[in-house]
Amino acid sequence: MALVVQKYGGSSVGSVERIQAVAKRVQQTVKAGNSLVVVVSAMGKTTDGLVSLAKEISSNPSRREMDMLLSTGEQVSIALLTMALQELGQDAISLTGAQVGIVTEAAHSKARILEISPDRLQRHLQEGKVIVVAGFQGISNTSELEITTLGRGGSDTSAVALAAAIKADYCEIYTDVPGILTTDPRLVPNAQLLREITANEMLELASLGAKVLHPRAVEIARNYGVDLVVRSSWSDDPGTKVLCPPIQARPLTDLELTRPVDAVEFDLDQAKVSLWRVPDRPGIAAHLFGEISQKNIDIDLIIQSIHEGNTNDIACTVTRAEAKRTEAVAVAIIPSLQGEATTPVEVMVEKDIAKIAIAGAGMIGRPGIAAKCLIP
Amino acid sequence: MALVVQKYGGSSVGSVERIQAVAKRVQQTVKAGNSLVVVVSAMGKTTDGLVSLAKEISSNPSRREMDMLLSTGEQVSIALLTMALQELGQDAISLTGAQVGIVTEAAHSKARILEISPDRLQRHLQEGKVIVVAGFQGISNTSELEITTLGRGGSDTSAVALAAAIKADYCEIYTDVPGILTTDPRLVPNAQLLREITANEMLELASLGAKVLHPRAVEIARNYGVDLVVRSSWSDDPGTKVLCPPIQARPLTDLELTRPVDAVEFDLDQAKVSLWRVPDRPGIAAHLFGEISQKNIDIDLIIQSIHEGNTNDIACTVTRAEAKRTEAVAVAIIPSLQGEATTPVEVMVEKDIAKIAIAGAGMIGRPGIAAKCLIP
Repeated sequence: MALVVQKYGGSSVGSVERIQAVAKRVQQTVKAGNSLVVVVSAMGKTTDGLVSLAKEISSNPSRREMDMLLSTGEQVSIALLTMALQELGQDAISLTGAQVGIVTEAAHSKARILEISPDRLQRHLQEGKVIVVAGFQGISNTSELEITTLGRGGSDTSAVALAAAIKADYCEIYTDVPGILTTDPRLVPNAQLLREITANEMLELASLGAKVLHPRAVEIARNYGVDLVVRSSWSDDPGTKVLCPPIQARPLTDLELTRPVDAVEFDLDQAKVSLWRVPDRPGIAAHLFGEISQKNIDIDLIIQSIHEGNTNDIACTVTRAEAKRTEAVAVAIIPSLQGEATTPVEVMVEKDIAKIAIAGAGMIGRPGIAAKCLIP
Repeated sequence: MALVVQKYGGSSVGSVERIQAVAKRVQQTVKAGNSLVVVVSAMGKTTDGLVSLAKEISSNPSRREMDMLLSTGEQVSIALLTMALQELGQDAISLTGAQVGIVTEAAHSKARILEISPDRLQRHLQEGKVIVVAGFQGISNTSELEITTLGRGGSDTSAVALAAAIKADYCEIYTDVPGILTTDPRLVPNAQLLREITANEMLELASLGAKVLHPRAVEIARNYGVDLVVRSSWSDDPGTKVLCPPIQARPLTDLELTRPVDAVEFDLDQAKVSLWRVPDRPGIAAHLFGEISQKNIDIDLIIQSIHEGNTNDIACTVTRAEAKRTEAVAVAIIPSLQGEATTPVEVMVEKDIAKIAIAGAGMIGRPGIAAKCLIP
């Protein structure tokens, strides 16, 4: 018997039939002996439809009113899924963000979760009810009930935060892909399904653009030790487990405000080798870095500037010790790069540099952190 | 400078263009120097669409979940109208029933309003904002925020109750007809527009089926002395004024629970004259009551029973003093009524009867009042 949070995205509840299929899966999970909180998104294209309506009225609608508008999408989903569960004979109750008590910052359209009161959830769970919670929404103020939405990744974030609040055994994120893949299968057909991944690895993948789980959600999972499972709504395949290291219990306040920045790291042992005015055509970078790798030189960062016209600058960083050898390779290949270019390719080396890395998923959707880190 | 509540029904906000037209009208009212609370229904067929979705899932969905579902319709409208007002440069804010603090009974899908807190409304009005409130909805419980809907006539009821709560100078009900007509213009083309009507007369019309204003709304108007104006969203015609007699201030608690029954009246001076087995064809009743009126006899109630077969019973009540004369008229016309009927028409007189009238709009939608009045 486990306490489980399940999250179903918009395509999983995109029609009456799909809602009924989700209800069956939820009921099976209950019949297997589990207690369940289910978080749902708005049905399919509902949010897009509401956004278009708003855009017809205003090119720049107020964020407060957008939240008022968009939060209805999830409210429709929770009511319908709860009806579908009740129709199967499964006792259930729907709750909005306000009714659960999901308290967020006041930042409309991109609010971060501060606190979730577990009291009402625990009471309904003890009554044997499946609780169907509207994802993506909260209130910024318990007396004025100002409706906020959480922005990108909001429903995943709601689910994981709820799992943290009620100390769920795990949180299942149902989606329309089979789990976490090594890369985008639409671009790389032989992308592999990962059976397990650590939360820290997942955080890196998610930050770099893996869309199946939002880094905000992964960050809460890691910070509160919530094990995640990412799996398909359309099959019984086990999907991918996102494993969290054991953590110390931490208070459920400022849930998403902890650690916007995990770490600032710096590396003084860096040099930058640049090639200026390289002809801008495919294969040039591969040629340059192929030659460098033949000399067994490790490259760290690669920066490519886009010039107007038909040339480009390419730069890379290496350790200072390797600066001379890298420069030599670059100079050696100038004639082959020069080609038809009329302006001469030039090599520049800078040794008086450092690399500063600011790491932390908390920076996503929170402007100004980089600026703060760059204040002299 | 007046404090005005305006209510726009579903067809008045049925499209983006109509919402924009409503916004212009609201802005004009503000520019004329008024403070404004606007109550809106769900857009056009939105509620019907949500009901169909629910019916696809369950033939008998839970009322709580229906309220959760249907209350989204008005929430969409308030957000869009507020955006349209802001787009015109008019400061505005949308509020759900929960945010206003419209507290109702717990009876889902037909809750009556108990209280409305004027505090937040007054604050936003002082800030110079137009307040756009979701009609038809409330909460049954200020801590659990259980969403209720008010049932039939809900948006009119919300508007008038809000007007009572903030002591508005008047409440305008915008609709798609020009005002209160003497009867249904679709059936009687020369129906007349009433320029004025008293709340008590309106209550009677509304109770008898005039659909343009719900009796619940009229009852609150009468009880709290809120003057109403019923007018068309599509013109500047003044419409119909529903005038309330001056009333003593009463507390804003149990708003809709006052007086389900206004009065029980009885009349012992009654006799019933019945004609049994009258042939069932048009003109018979006109013939009978024409003859009676020729004798200058006042008729009170007329009851017509529907038999199987081709005959019918017709009865009327008169004062006891007129019973004999009425009986004589009835007997006298039997031969002309008899016509081709095979069973004989018969006249019966009962003098041992009384008429009891139970009056009060509060009985509408509140089953059991008649039963209670009939307990011996």
